Amino acid sequence: MKPVDPLRASAEVRAVFDDIKATRKVAEVNNFWRYLANEPRMLRHTWESLKSIMGPGELDGLTKELIYVAVSITNNCDYCMASLTAAARAKGATEAQINELYAVVALANMTNRLANAYKVPVDPAYLPAD
Amino acid sequence: MKPVDPLRASAEVRAVFDDIKATRKVAEVNNFWRYLANEPRMLRHTWESLKSIMGPGELDGLTKELIYVAVSITNNCDYCMASLTAAARAKGATEAQINELYAVVALANMTNRLANAYKVPVDPAYLPAD
Amino acid sequence: MKPVDPLRASAEVRAVFDDIKATRKVAEVNNFWRYLANEPRMLRHTWESLKSIMGPGELDGLTKELIYVAVSITNNCDYCMASLTAAARAKGATEAQINELYAVVALANMTNRLANAYKVPVDPAYLPAD
Amino acid sequence: MKPVDPLRASAEVRAVFDDIKATRKVAEVNNFWRYLANEPRMLRHTWESLKSIMGPGELDGLTKELIYVAVSITNNCDYCMASLTAAARAKGATEAQINELYAVVALANMTNRLANAYKVPVDPAYLPAD
Amino acid sequence: MKPVDPLRASAEVRAVFDDIKATRKVAEVNNFWRYLANEPRMLRHTWESLKSIMGPGELDGLTKELIYVAVSITNNCDYCMASLTAAARAKGATEAQINELYAVVALANMTNRLANAYKVPVDPAYLPAD
Amino acid sequence: MKPVDPLRASAEVRAVFDDIKATRKVAEVNNFWRYLANEPRMLRHTWESLKSIMGPGELDGLTKELIYVAVSITNNCDYCMASLTAAARAKGATEAQINELYAVVALANMTNRLANAYKVPVDPAYLPAD
Repeated sequence: MKPVDPLRASAEVRAVFDDIKATRKVAEVNNFWRYLANEPRMLRHTWESLKSIMGPGELDGLTKELIYVAVSITNNCDYCMASLTAAARAKGATEAQINELYAVVALANMTNRLANAYKVPVDPAYLPAD
Repeated sequence: MKPVDPLRASAEVRAVFDDIKATRKVAEVNNFWRYLANEPRMLRHTWESLKSIMGPGELDGLTKELIYVAVSITNNCDYCMASLTAAARAKGATEAQINELYAVVALANMTNRLANAYKVPVDPAYLPAD
Repeated sequence: MKPVDPLRASAEVRAVFDDIKATRKVAEVNNFWRYLANEPRMLRHTWESLKSIMGPGELDGLTKELIYVAVSITNNCDYCMASLTAAARAKGATEAQINELYAVVALANMTNRLANAYKVPVDPAYLPAD
Repeated sequence: MKPVDPLRASAEVRAVFDDIKATRKVAEVNNFWRYLANEPRMLRHTWESLKSIMGPGELDGLTKELIYVAVSITNNCDYCMASLTAAARAKGATEAQINELYAVVALANMTNRLANAYKVPVDPAYLPAD
Repeated sequence: MKPVDPLRASAEVRAVFDDIKATRKVAEVNNFWRYLANEPRMLRHTWESLKSIMGPGELDGLTKELIYVAVSITNNCDYCMASLTAAARAKGATEAQINELYAVVALANMTNRLANAYKVPVDPAYLPAD
Repeated sequence: MKPVDPLRASAEVRAVFDDIKATRKVAEVNNFWRYLANEPRMLRHTWESLKSIMGPGELDGLTKELIYVAVSITNNCDYCMASLTAAARAKGATEAQINELYAVVALANMTNRLANAYKVPVDPAYLPAD
């Protein structure tokens, strides 16, 4: 697949691109959206979900970006690590914070496997109260 | 494997258990550590890493717990989801925040696959400056 | 490891290569098989399994290719995405179908994590009847 | 988290539940949606995406259900395997087709790792034409 | 799906079951094979591959069982962990070795994510000589 | 992130680098450690864990390297596959053994998904005795 050229995009795609640019105050949409525009329905659903969930809500914006990076590292998604680390820095993440994030993600991947391997039963205290 | 009974544990294991209880101000160590004690070296390394990285540092404690939960959901680790969500609540996470966390994790898993499927090239703006 | 040169391959490997070429009506075997030929037993088992399962059966050939691509995206296997998307196109997949495939795969990865995070219990209606 | 009781749900949640029931012609929403309703925004986005992409489109409905199951097996999501296999059967999948689906998914997971392990380079014929 | 009853199995399935029992010197085939018998072609291919690769070869049998367990932990496959750990014990693995195996698997999952997160370039010394 | 230059590293980092070089009898630390040095606490914890677990213990050194490679293939970590395969060769692994390792890893990934898809129940014989 090739990226969709914004100048030749359908009206439906252009409307999403315009909303991305306005919401994020950027001059151009990044590659992710231009490729995703090959499936205009999914472009719209993905953008609307992200705008809603990653916008103001219960957790602060930087925390949400860091969570996004954490999942992307675990899944080994190169584009996502690059774009989201950039986004985290833009929201104020320091190098020291990103390094600590990497450490937390790595430890979680380690302890996840230890819990699996030992088939550790959930402690009663962690079960939801009825 | 069976969990190690703290009353019959070796001095090396008991020292780690005591440090966990003192650091976390809890009366008993949770199941994870009791199973992991079957490999005393790994018990010690895992605890020392977690105490260091999950303790005071660059990111606040709740953010680190949420990142831990995010990785555990992605890896589908039942014990980890249960114990870490409990830890996040203990550090002040509200139900609304945990719900939003789940949404962010789910969206990240979706967009990770879209980026992979389309083989989206990294935008020059996201590449590290030299 | 290096790919095995068909001209210098053992008789066992050549026999598999010849069967691949005859079955698929292609002039040369693609890289996957040439690398896998470093382990001749596994070359044979893999080819025999694929020839049997991906050949005429219960599901139509294009559906099976799309399922193959779906798994490869989820596992982030670059070679597999490239070779299998080519195979899907050769079996008649349109660009619009491949775009929709990507959307389905992405959504499945998202809802998989939501189901895990919320620990959704299986509805009785979905349990197999006894 | 507990499932949201439809009788006590907010108007926003009830509207989604009603649309699910009308679209699928079912009397009750299944557990997935009742848990997801704890995050009403994500409930709405997930339902709208699924309704759009899993509805009439480029691929036939059964093919899309099978792709969904394939990803869920790869990710080891118990709820998803149960609910989606039920959905595939409802759309006409036979036992023989589901068994073949499992075989394709298993083989894809095997060859994905072989391609990774041997670092097989993409054949020029599989690269997109410029 | 239900397991196939050996007494009612087709001749093709019974032949595989008999070979499993003879090769492994066991009185009954374990559940894995009885479920897989729902897809007789895949039953045969899977058994033939495993018999060939897990039998006498380049690596000793215990090492191969441990590798099998390591992958199963990483993929969080409960049945596989149970059956393969039993197989490793039957081939002479001690509790201390299994504990060390778990530690190696956990560490590998940790360092895998660190290498991904930091995008560590491969050292020239590790590249294959031409 | 950039790799840490050993000549400009802090005393804490240099101490770890020196221990790596002395333990492994190498002149320079490889890239993994130089990048990880951006987070000095994690550098130290990771090295101490690896030195302890991958050093003399219950399993022989080559077996542990092969297990490490097996996990890295399953997780698709390029750097890890390259560096660890080099380490396995340095510990005496032959090409034939590495090829067989790849075959075992691939088969494990296949049977893991079959066991998941069929939801195979654990045979009583594989359950731990009480």
